[in-house]
Amino acid sequence: MMKTLIIVSHPEIDNSQTQQFLYQGAKLENAIWHHVEKINNLDVINEQKLLIEADRIIFQFPLYWYSAPSGLKSWEDTVLTRNFIYGDKTYPLEGKEFGLVITTGLPLKDFQKGAAENFTLDELMTPYRAIADKARMKIMPIFPVPQFWYKTELMQMDLLVDYQRYLTQEMPDSLNNKQTWFEKKLQELDLNSNIEDKKFLELILSNFTSRIEELDQLNDTLEMVKEDDEN
Amino acid sequence: MMKTLIIVSHPEIDNSQTQQFLYQGAKLENAIWHHVEKINNLDVINEQKLLIEADRIIFQFPLYWYSAPSGLKSWEDTVLTRNFIYGDKTYPLEGKEFGLVITTGLPLKDFQKGAAENFTLDELMTPYRAIADKARMKIMPIFPVPQFWYKTELMQMDLLVDYQRYLTQEMPDSLNNKQTWFEKKLQELDLNSNIEDKKFLELILSNFTSRIEELDQLNDTLEMVKEDDEN
Repeated sequence: MMKTLIIVSHPEIDNSQTQQFLYQGAKLENAIWHHVEKINNLDVINEQKLLIEADRIIFQFPLYWYSAPSGLKSWEDTVLTRNFIYGDKTYPLEGKEFGLVITTGLPLKDFQKGAAENFTLDELMTPYRAIADKARMKIMPIFPVPQFWYKTELMQMDLLVDYQRYLTQEMPDSLNNKQTWFEKKLQELDLNSNIEDKKFLELILSNFTSRIEELDQLNDTLEMVKEDDEN
Repeated sequence: MMKTLIIVSHPEIDNSQTQQFLYQGAKLENAIWHHVEKINNLDVINEQKLLIEADRIIFQFPLYWYSAPSGLKSWEDTVLTRNFIYGDKTYPLEGKEFGLVITTGLPLKDFQKGAAENFTLDELMTPYRAIADKARMKIMPIFPVPQFWYKTELMQMDLLVDYQRYLTQEMPDSLNNKQTWFEKKLQELDLNSNIEDKKFLELILSNFTSRIEELDQLNDTLEMVKEDDEN
């Protein structure tokens, strides 16, 4: 089973509603929640072992001055030694997937040229892409979590499922991979979950499959139009 | 007189030949060398006061994972409070100049698309540009210091003068502003410097003025060609 390591950085995580919410979502069999500010006596070898054992590595943090909080930078500067990442030409993280979960109090539309922040999240995250490149990791699209506290309960539940998919679904985020993930998730719930969770996921799954059916119908229509054109 | 504040970050500055060299260059009447890793009991109000009193603010650091060492990020996260930078709509740093002095063990040509690092320094420094934008500061071009230890003594002296100009010369870096800076520098030396320094700067100045004369001659020639064309 694919393993995901979530490197979380937040200096006041207990006061962060967003991080507490994501923490609930990350309670998955194959995901490790690793909060850097809570590490006592950082052991570089142990941290590197965690990275090596993961198939997907996520950096998760709130945007502090367009970057991660200093806690994550300190962890990077200590754990990601040159020799570990690329120094001896062995590239132990090669081929692993690298993702970024970024929480922000601002709306996403602010992150573009000419808007309030004037830079895209992609541009601001260039240093992390450069690290992933250097380690020969595969870069996933950023998972932004803007303005969590404005979300309705339903939007929050939607976010939770999307977050879980970001952590454990096979990439790319295609319809097929999505469907496989949902089906597997439902099977797991049949075995060991409470009735509330199950109902919720069944709802999502039925929504999702109905959308797939719509797409199928659209495809059929498209085929018919094509055939008409050819005749 | 214009005041420059140099916020320096390096966790092992005493072992850094490059930083020790730049430190000698920064011994100027109107420049303050402020090493963040050496601050005891960080006083936010005092740090903000230093920023307010400066006309030009420089962040100076070695590239650690395509960014500043965690010491500078920690300083940013603590000192640059939202309220100080833009929260109350007063923008106390508005109009000040903001520069970056970046030392790296790699050659500059590595920092471009397709080369070893695949990103330009400008791209990697996006978060700092975003901070300067937010504070309404004027952004200076980056001052890169690549591969200091490969430089000959003459190249090092050249670097030192360029660094001093980056710290204190009026921007933009035009021929006129350059000349004014050199002339002022020489006057100061006449008053209070040792003979070695003076000889060195006279050499630079004479080189520089001879290049200006060459340019003047070229301009004259160009004018003559134009006149010929018109006749």
